[in-house]
Amino acid sequence: MAGRVIVYGGKGALGSSLVAFFKAKSWWVASVDIFPNEEADANVVLTPTDSWTDQEKELESKVESIVTGFKLDAVLCVAGGWAGGNAASKAFVKNSDMMWKQSVWSSVLASQLSARHLTEGGLLCMTGAKAALEGTPGMIGYGMAKAAVHQLVKSVAADNSGMPKDSTTVAILPVTLDTPMNRKFMSTADFSQWTPLDTVSQKLFEWTTDKKSRPANGSLVQVVTKDGVTSFVPTE
Amino acid sequence: MAGRVIVYGGKGALGSSLVAFFKAKSWWVASVDIFPNEEADANVVLTPTDSWTDQEKELESKVESIVTGFKLDAVLCVAGGWAGGNAASKAFVKNSDMMWKQSVWSSVLASQLSARHLTEGGLLCMTGAKAALEGTPGMIGYGMAKAAVHQLVKSVAADNSGMPKDSTTVAILPVTLDTPMNRKFMSTADFSQWTPLDTVSQKLFEWTTDKKSRPANGSLVQVVTKDGVTSFVPTE
Repeated sequence: MAGRVIVYGGKGALGSSLVAFFKAKSWWVASVDIFPNEEADANVVLTPTDSWTDQEKELESKVESIVTGFKLDAVLCVAGGWAGGNAASKAFVKNSDMMWKQSVWSSVLASQLSARHLTEGGLLCMTGAKAALEGTPGMIGYGMAKAAVHQLVKSVAADNSGMPKDSTTVAILPVTLDTPMNRKFMSTADFSQWTPLDTVSQKLFEWTTDKKSRPANGSLVQVVTKDGVTSFVPTE
Repeated sequence: MAGRVIVYGGKGALGSSLVAFFKAKSWWVASVDIFPNEEADANVVLTPTDSWTDQEKELESKVESIVTGFKLDAVLCVAGGWAGGNAASKAFVKNSDMMWKQSVWSSVLASQLSARHLTEGGLLCMTGAKAALEGTPGMIGYGMAKAAVHQLVKSVAADNSGMPKDSTTVAILPVTLDTPMNRKFMSTADFSQWTPLDTVSQKLFEWTTDKKSRPANGSLVQVVTKDGVTSFVPTE
């Protein structure tokens, strides 16, 4: 066994790619999701709930039953979703609520999990969005949740955040990932401007295993794909 | 009657100051809060709930019963709270949840209310926090919620956000307000570095009534008090 990683959102499109990638490198991989990922060595299957603290309790008790007597090398949080809507949309509040639960609950819980179970010098990576670096009037709830994740990364990366010594916390900020769902709903788009999932998995594997390759602690790394070539560009 | 304003969080320290200030200028003032403000002309008293959409429904039905046949000149959202805690704190999730509900629920609902009831050229002002422009490791939930409000302001101020024509959306970003609660919990601090509530109320009254005095749409205006002198400084 080469190392140990938890993929939070391990049954989603990017999460499944990560699970498969790390498995192929002989890593112990656990998935946290509302559905099990059969490829993973262990699964934490969360019950959908409207109570964040209930989800916290369920997560911690289930994580403690699989992370026994060892620390994790990395926690990769790629849970999330997308919903549109502006301030005049009927679903404005409903969608803002959903975006919060999908992106921020998961990122905060992944941070807590990392504070408790990540090894010294380990990696926590969350998922933001390049769009949320500015206003997002057509998808307000989505932008708010991702902006919260960006600031969370800055907090968790700062001194006295409660994280293990020498650990690194960053976020990837994709534009559009090349997922089956995105192909279905944007079938006429130019896919060569979308980021392949494997490219992201490979990069996160590199950051996990080669500390020198990592962006600086607290980095918000934009993931930009142009004509089939993907760049990972820290913000600012 | 000089004009009409809704103060969201109208029973809090800053909210009460705003209600009194606008009342003294002969404005029609409605307060939205979980407690009534007896000075206000009308009160929307919200029932504490864990469901954002339930709060949305209650708010809209109660607002529609008091905002009848007219539009609002301003919606001033000063609801919010404070809680500390880093990623290793026991109350990390609980406090993050509370901060979200106090700051983001209110700001999103104030945005929706503005999209529906604000007059053309009206003012929506929300409340962020200067600290949340960077990482806030000792108060992670607070910083996340305020960063979400900052990005919300950018979204709501952008084109096609659903807001009335020519309206202005901004946020004030205080450091420390001179409230009874803050004096109680930080009794040895130098109060001359804190911002008096009246100073904020006066400035928001000015922005409401004199369009030329307003900061640019989408501004995050830092409220900085030094030796008793308060400056309102747009970020960047």
